[in-house]
Amino acid sequence: MMPPLALTMGDPAGIGGEITAKAWRVLRGGGPVFFAIDDPDRLAGFGVPVRIIGRPEQAGDVFGSDLPVLPLPLAVPAAPGCPDPANAPAVVGSIEHAVALALDGVAGGVVTNPINKAALYAAGFRHPGHTEFLAELTGVAGQEVMMLASPMLRVVPVSGHVSLRAAIDGLTSAAIVRVGRTADAALRRDFGIAAPRLAVAGLNPHAGEGGALGEEDGRIVAPAIATLVEEGIDATGPWPPDTMFTPTARARYDAALCMYHDQALIPLKTLDMEGGVNVTLGLPIVRTSPDHGTAYDIAGTGVASPASLIAALRLCGALAARRAGAGVA
Amino acid sequence: MMPPLALTMGDPAGIGGEITAKAWRVLRGGGPVFFAIDDPDRLAGFGVPVRIIGRPEQAGDVFGSDLPVLPLPLAVPAAPGCPDPANAPAVVGSIEHAVALALDGVAGGVVTNPINKAALYAAGFRHPGHTEFLAELTGVAGQEVMMLASPMLRVVPVSGHVSLRAAIDGLTSAAIVRVGRTADAALRRDFGIAAPRLAVAGLNPHAGEGGALGEEDGRIVAPAIATLVEEGIDATGPWPPDTMFTPTARARYDAALCMYHDQALIPLKTLDMEGGVNVTLGLPIVRTSPDHGTAYDIAGTGVASPASLIAALRLCGALAARRAGAGVA
Repeated sequence: MMPPLALTMGDPAGIGGEITAKAWRVLRGGGPVFFAIDDPDRLAGFGVPVRIIGRPEQAGDVFGSDLPVLPLPLAVPAAPGCPDPANAPAVVGSIEHAVALALDGVAGGVVTNPINKAALYAAGFRHPGHTEFLAELTGVAGQEVMMLASPMLRVVPVSGHVSLRAAIDGLTSAAIVRVGRTADAALRRDFGIAAPRLAVAGLNPHAGEGGALGEEDGRIVAPAIATLVEEGIDATGPWPPDTMFTPTARARYDAALCMYHDQALIPLKTLDMEGGVNVTLGLPIVRTSPDHGTAYDIAGTGVASPASLIAALRLCGALAARRAGAGVA
Repeated sequence: MMPPLALTMGDPAGIGGEITAKAWRVLRGGGPVFFAIDDPDRLAGFGVPVRIIGRPEQAGDVFGSDLPVLPLPLAVPAAPGCPDPANAPAVVGSIEHAVALALDGVAGGVVTNPINKAALYAAGFRHPGHTEFLAELTGVAGQEVMMLASPMLRVVPVSGHVSLRAAIDGLTSAAIVRVGRTADAALRRDFGIAAPRLAVAGLNPHAGEGGALGEEDGRIVAPAIATLVEEGIDATGPWPPDTMFTPTARARYDAALCMYHDQALIPLKTLDMEGGVNVTLGLPIVRTSPDHGTAYDIAGTGVASPASLIAALRLCGALAARRAGAGVA
């Protein structure tokens, strides 16, 4: 049987606690089973029955009646919307503990609640972001690849949180090939797709139109696709970006490799604002996260939607089950 | 009563004739009334009754039973998929004639079938594209602005068919202000929106996130918005590009000003592949066109969809009626 999933605390001043409680209410009946690594008193404040557990293995027995929590006390009570650097060690500790449990195999995967990098930096955190921290903790720094997945579309941007100009300047065939290999491997192993089809977007309008609208598609993107194909990967393109996210086009591939952040995120969020799940590929563990931030503006008001966290927990469960060989769809 | 619309021939080797005939079959009952400026024999080949007219005013009387055609004979018979430079004068002549009739007020507006620039260049055509040619014919070269409109979204890209790098290099506050003014005026006059709301996209992911992800949003985009607001235009932004095309976000504006081609075209075509209509703003005449090309690959096979041309004719009719003061919705 698949081990339970570990859910991190995230920034306690954000909506993480509220959506954790709401997600448990929805999933307690059908799973996947998860446990929070969090402050039990704070989670009880969201009106759910909390059960302190000592080991992940105990989560399954209590999950139907109580939210299982591996206790990690906050230094100071969390104030909604007001991050406190005094709680940064607990935020970081929750992530470290979740990763250690997943590496040990007693957690099936890790789902992370949103953090606020600024609050962590003030307390000495030195990583560019959540995902890079996870890659370092799992010993694969620089190999992480972000996928955004929804029921309608999977996108894998070759670059992430950099300016559009930096995304162009930094685009290389090697980066596209690396991301393509990682996506292909993950689609086979974790998503259960026997013969994954990758559609590679062009960088420029109309994929450069033979060079008239930019030379990068011919000089950088096309050679990367050729390399992937030589390696036996079913990669096609470069496709004109504006027509590759229509229903007809999407039916022809399993994931779209995108050349910059918004080329991937615009179609994903336009099609499915709430269902998008962030999946980190290239790690030795399964990791997903909801596709939103700490939402300080609504923290503490009770209106936060758990939809993306629930989608993240469900997808993490499905991926972890496949990796564990349980074959759950 | 609004004068009939002029529909140009487009490239006779493309799907223009076929979709013209199909569009007439759909619109003959309810309008808007249009006439083709085309070769009557070629159009009759698509299985519709063709009526040669001498003046646009005659189109309305025959439209219910026959496709009205202002005759413009081809030099050589058109071969599907094989453009012939010998027919370039007819292709160009059809556009010139349509524009002249619209400037004279005897055509309510111009709808253009797709052309192939390469075939025209070989015959001496010297304009960057269809739209620039129309701007020059109407005496407003450089003032044309492209809008893509569908029932779900209107987008106005600040730059068009240039590389992504050139779009960044060429982005100026002045260009954004010019496009914003033109969009605001067109939404008021032609679309009948009394107080248009413009949402201006950022250039960079997260609209630059305060400069961490690019400085253009603060240096170029924000000042342009401030200028538009000073002029009394309801412009907001810069908005994070990835979240501005969700249903909730779209409900808050009438048109999105986009910083480059694919930022505008990806959400439009993802939401509505067939319904998109190209509207040229900033001209003294109303002009729309279907949002697709000559489609040589399917020309002559009978499978071309007239949906976008029909949408273009309907929108042209609505815009022309408003401009004529008829107040048709």
